[in-house]
Amino acid sequence: MVRFAVLGCGRIGRMHAANVARHPDATLVSVFDVTLDAAAEVAGRLGVRQAASVEEVMADAGIDAVLIATSTDSHVELIIAAARAGKAALCEKPIDLDMARVTRCWNEIGSLNPTVMIGFNRRFDPSFAALRRRAHAGEIGRIEQVVITSRDPGPPPIAYIKGSGGLFRDMTIHDFDMARSLVGDIVEVSAFGASLVDPAIGEAGDIDAAMVTMRAASGALVHINNSRRCSYGYDQRLEVFGETGMLVAGNRRETSVEMFNAKSTQAADPVLHFFIQRYADAYAAEIAHFVGCVQDKATPTPSFGDGMAALLLADAANESLRTGRSVTLEIH
Amino acid sequence: MVRFAVLGCGRIGRMHAANVARHPDATLVSVFDVTLDAAAEVAGRLGVRQAASVEEVMADAGIDAVLIATSTDSHVELIIAAARAGKAALCEKPIDLDMARVTRCWNEIGSLNPTVMIGFNRRFDPSFAALRRRAHAGEIGRIEQVVITSRDPGPPPIAYIKGSGGLFRDMTIHDFDMARSLVGDIVEVSAFGASLVDPAIGEAGDIDAAMVTMRAASGALVHINNSRRCSYGYDQRLEVFGETGMLVAGNRRETSVEMFNAKSTQAADPVLHFFIQRYADAYAAEIAHFVGCVQDKATPTPSFGDGMAALLLADAANESLRTGRSVTLEIH
Amino acid sequence: MVRFAVLGCGRIGRMHAANVARHPDATLVSVFDVTLDAAAEVAGRLGVRQAASVEEVMADAGIDAVLIATSTDSHVELIIAAARAGKAALCEKPIDLDMARVTRCWNEIGSLNPTVMIGFNRRFDPSFAALRRRAHAGEIGRIEQVVITSRDPGPPPIAYIKGSGGLFRDMTIHDFDMARSLVGDIVEVSAFGASLVDPAIGEAGDIDAAMVTMRAASGALVHINNSRRCSYGYDQRLEVFGETGMLVAGNRRETSVEMFNAKSTQAADPVLHFFIQRYADAYAAEIAHFVGCVQDKATPTPSFGDGMAALLLADAANESLRTGRSVTLEIH
Amino acid sequence: MVRFAVLGCGRIGRMHAANVARHPDATLVSVFDVTLDAAAEVAGRLGVRQAASVEEVMADAGIDAVLIATSTDSHVELIIAAARAGKAALCEKPIDLDMARVTRCWNEIGSLNPTVMIGFNRRFDPSFAALRRRAHAGEIGRIEQVVITSRDPGPPPIAYIKGSGGLFRDMTIHDFDMARSLVGDIVEVSAFGASLVDPAIGEAGDIDAAMVTMRAASGALVHINNSRRCSYGYDQRLEVFGETGMLVAGNRRETSVEMFNAKSTQAADPVLHFFIQRYADAYAAEIAHFVGCVQDKATPTPSFGDGMAALLLADAANESLRTGRSVTLEIH
Repeated sequence: MVRFAVLGCGRIGRMHAANVARHPDATLVSVFDVTLDAAAEVAGRLGVRQAASVEEVMADAGIDAVLIATSTDSHVELIIAAARAGKAALCEKPIDLDMARVTRCWNEIGSLNPTVMIGFNRRFDPSFAALRRRAHAGEIGRIEQVVITSRDPGPPPIAYIKGSGGLFRDMTIHDFDMARSLVGDIVEVSAFGASLVDPAIGEAGDIDAAMVTMRAASGALVHINNSRRCSYGYDQRLEVFGETGMLVAGNRRETSVEMFNAKSTQAADPVLHFFIQRYADAYAAEIAHFVGCVQDKATPTPSFGDGMAALLLADAANESLRTGRSVTLEIH
Repeated sequence: MVRFAVLGCGRIGRMHAANVARHPDATLVSVFDVTLDAAAEVAGRLGVRQAASVEEVMADAGIDAVLIATSTDSHVELIIAAARAGKAALCEKPIDLDMARVTRCWNEIGSLNPTVMIGFNRRFDPSFAALRRRAHAGEIGRIEQVVITSRDPGPPPIAYIKGSGGLFRDMTIHDFDMARSLVGDIVEVSAFGASLVDPAIGEAGDIDAAMVTMRAASGALVHINNSRRCSYGYDQRLEVFGETGMLVAGNRRETSVEMFNAKSTQAADPVLHFFIQRYADAYAAEIAHFVGCVQDKATPTPSFGDGMAALLLADAANESLRTGRSVTLEIH
Repeated sequence: MVRFAVLGCGRIGRMHAANVARHPDATLVSVFDVTLDAAAEVAGRLGVRQAASVEEVMADAGIDAVLIATSTDSHVELIIAAARAGKAALCEKPIDLDMARVTRCWNEIGSLNPTVMIGFNRRFDPSFAALRRRAHAGEIGRIEQVVITSRDPGPPPIAYIKGSGGLFRDMTIHDFDMARSLVGDIVEVSAFGASLVDPAIGEAGDIDAAMVTMRAASGALVHINNSRRCSYGYDQRLEVFGETGMLVAGNRRETSVEMFNAKSTQAADPVLHFFIQRYADAYAAEIAHFVGCVQDKATPTPSFGDGMAALLLADAANESLRTGRSVTLEIH
Repeated sequence: MVRFAVLGCGRIGRMHAANVARHPDATLVSVFDVTLDAAAEVAGRLGVRQAASVEEVMADAGIDAVLIATSTDSHVELIIAAARAGKAALCEKPIDLDMARVTRCWNEIGSLNPTVMIGFNRRFDPSFAALRRRAHAGEIGRIEQVVITSRDPGPPPIAYIKGSGGLFRDMTIHDFDMARSLVGDIVEVSAFGASLVDPAIGEAGDIDAAMVTMRAASGALVHINNSRRCSYGYDQRLEVFGETGMLVAGNRRETSVEMFNAKSTQAADPVLHFFIQRYADAYAAEIAHFVGCVQDKATPTPSFGDGMAALLLADAANESLRTGRSVTLEIH
């Protein structure tokens, strides 16, 4: 039984807390949030303790693991605290918006050999995971090209955009990780961006639409397309093209109903809009993987290093955007 | 809060018990099974009481509702006991294999105005329910024809077949109910049956493949096709053809992955095989509907009368099979 | 080179004439129609002779084959004339509306061992033909059940209905032949009909919607559903269910474009409406098969016997409709 | 009636000759090829004259239009000859591999106001044309992103590769034109290439896989992915993403048959492999457009300028490949 505290009781923290509580090999011991009411609400509903402080959680010998779902700027300090307290940590993406801080973080904790997992939930989507498993098992031969389609149903509030670190660090970071999970290390990145959705996003210095091209060390080419708006739902698709075949994985809908009439045929539902619904199975599988690793003292994936690598690609994409050049990355 | 006892701790009873336990407005108080170990296992896992007898359950003022998931031959007596004890009952299909017993059952309890719901889970499948809602809202005009495809992944053991009441009462009964839920009362039934899957089923006097045609009082024509075997999974589809369009609802798969290669393209997963997985959402929605009706003192659907009507259609299909004639039903 | 005369220059005759003219191993020599203008128009456009009479055609030693696309009531006499003149005949379906006349026809010509093919064009649809080839090659094991969906875009004029011989002889006859081409001889037929589309059709003594169930000598069960109206086009589908799999074949659309928006996703075009467009490839392949058989002195399929067998099924369906009984057929 | 000569009787020339011969408003007068046997074969089969020389064709007052399907290096001189002879020309793509020659060509003939159309056949594919029409009619609002998938079934012989001008000029040129037809002028191009399919192609100095990103003057972003190999056929798809929806257009298959069995479901045929079959309708529609324009003295599209613009994008892609920079284009 893995005993958890959940740090951060916002929308994502609440969802994780419920998933932890539901997992047969996990126990939710306590929750914490700087907004006391939020933590109290979750603690009350799930019948668990409300911790008075992060320090209390870290000092609690009855807690094995922390789930970090606080605001991004606190991730690094909480990962460090957990590592020092000998607790496993599952931290929401991104580790931080600043690569220098991320590097310092690892410098501080690396020697402790901590159990840290980064919450790239999409790796755990049953369809994406099955596609990856089959591609890596050789069903389509060598992977030659990957197309990642990733479009949000609508833009977040402008205030969120301003603190987000920009499209590549906030949104594309999932796709950078997905690309790496499919083709391994990336050695070259080129990015185009535009503000097509909402002029306010452009005025805030960010982009809301992007196309990124990458080259993997394996030789494979990867394309990512992003938009902050998608009229028909949360468009999340993979197309992996290999020597002997192509594997694709697609969207999810509320029902399987299709309409045929004088105007059109096989008209299906819009695809699921809300990321917590779209990735409900993925979030549960993510917790299950982490719990299993903690129980087995295995290294969870995606690791801290995976989190760093995705951020590195976001930074490279930003550099390409700024310079109009493709950016080369060294593989260590 | 609706307080439940679950009677019968076999495969379906266990699944229902877990769904009751998970529902926010329901509490699972106790479970009972004549096989004491089965009940003990469920009681232990869910942390509830193991009742010593049905009588204990019925006498317990702390129980509002019973979920009847025992063997078919005990359904009638348990429905009567629940009605007399003033408890709401959600009873698995079929009510009984013998129409005379079903009629007597209602004669005994009808005047008590009991809350009885019959477990035709498929009405609650999100896709079938959405299709029905849209069709009844007029999206395709008057319903003219319905095609119901309903094929089990594989035949049950021959011992089960022998006590099942035959294909129409055991398997098609779901489709009879589905037809009624779409087009209302049925006035004419014609059935073809065959033993194509397993000669042992034929030797046992049953059929394992069938095609049924029905006419509704509304004029609509309905076709049902059944098989006890389906190589690619549990094939469950609806096609509803109206004046101005067609609505279809289809199968569910584990993932959205599709393979394209030199032999074929868009090759998807087999459809889900196991009815508890295929109809997981439906079973949960069924409990939710029942809980809501008990709370609101509303009449749940499908009602006892719906259970009778489906059995009547099964009997009519058997008569048609025997006589080679279409059988006319009177609507009361 | 097979030298043709086309008899009947209506919509279907014109289409056949163009297909004959286009076939590399066929020559269109002459055309005939009792409506002289119709024949003159076709003769002029295709640069061929306008025959003055059927007799002239039958006496012409420069003609090897006749394509009979005249009104149904003249089919029998033209088949007889062609057989006596030693010319191969490809005759549009149905041979005749009256089984007695069809039998007399064969009694007169059978001993001449004539080359007669009946125009059940759908057998030659590339998708239906591929499905049949694959099913007969054993890809899905023994065929257990067949579902034939066959819905016209809209009803013909009421005057046509009155002379059509009724839905089963006029429209379902294609589906009866399709069923036989898939599962062989039929031994039992049961039919439901209704007038759901246009009351005038019912008043004229015909039905405009039907569901037919049949049993093959092989044991397979077959369902056919028909309607004289289909809002989304000419709905023509097959579903063939076997021991180890299912093969389906579907509709055709003008384009592959699909729309995704806030209301629905993957909304495709309506399916093709017009039978000559829907079955354009099939009509061309039908001519090619006939030409090949005439050149090779082989027996074309569907044969005169196939035409008789389909009519027999239509008559049996009518009897079932009238009596409410399933009708048993003897196989000779 | 537009009177044609076809220059070049290779695979594409023969196909065009047959399409011209079949068009009701066109007459094929003569054909020419430096390989006399090739021309003789086509002339014999279609019953037309074999011209002795290009000069004879250009001097023939009975010819209105030439279809140029010769080797690429002769296109410019034939376009010039046709323009001077006052004949309309439909020239296969590309105009030439050398932008300087293309520019000189136009300098020589522009003042003659010649009727020249470039054979970008894909614009005339019924699905791509319908998608474009609907997108330009505003069905999805402003076009924001385009994904063009374009993969050949297999690489051409290495000798062809060596004279092809490279992937971008030979293969991607179709996609450059398609992008322009959808989003208008392109202002920025960035390209990644690789040799993933056949090392011999890499050794010959060419690439066999590519990903190109472009920005349109309108602000829209465009992605193209190419491969010289595709195991499941000739993969040709469009995805056009707008403000209020997405329009997609896809591949074509020989049949609509789908297989469902224990391994997979809805497994369809591979997509069509051969470009002449895949784009049969498009090639016919291309001729029809050209014939219509010649008859109406209208300017055909794609124009000579469209051919130049596509070549300019190919050259920009090559420059980007060489420099690792995105290349900016000026719009005149």
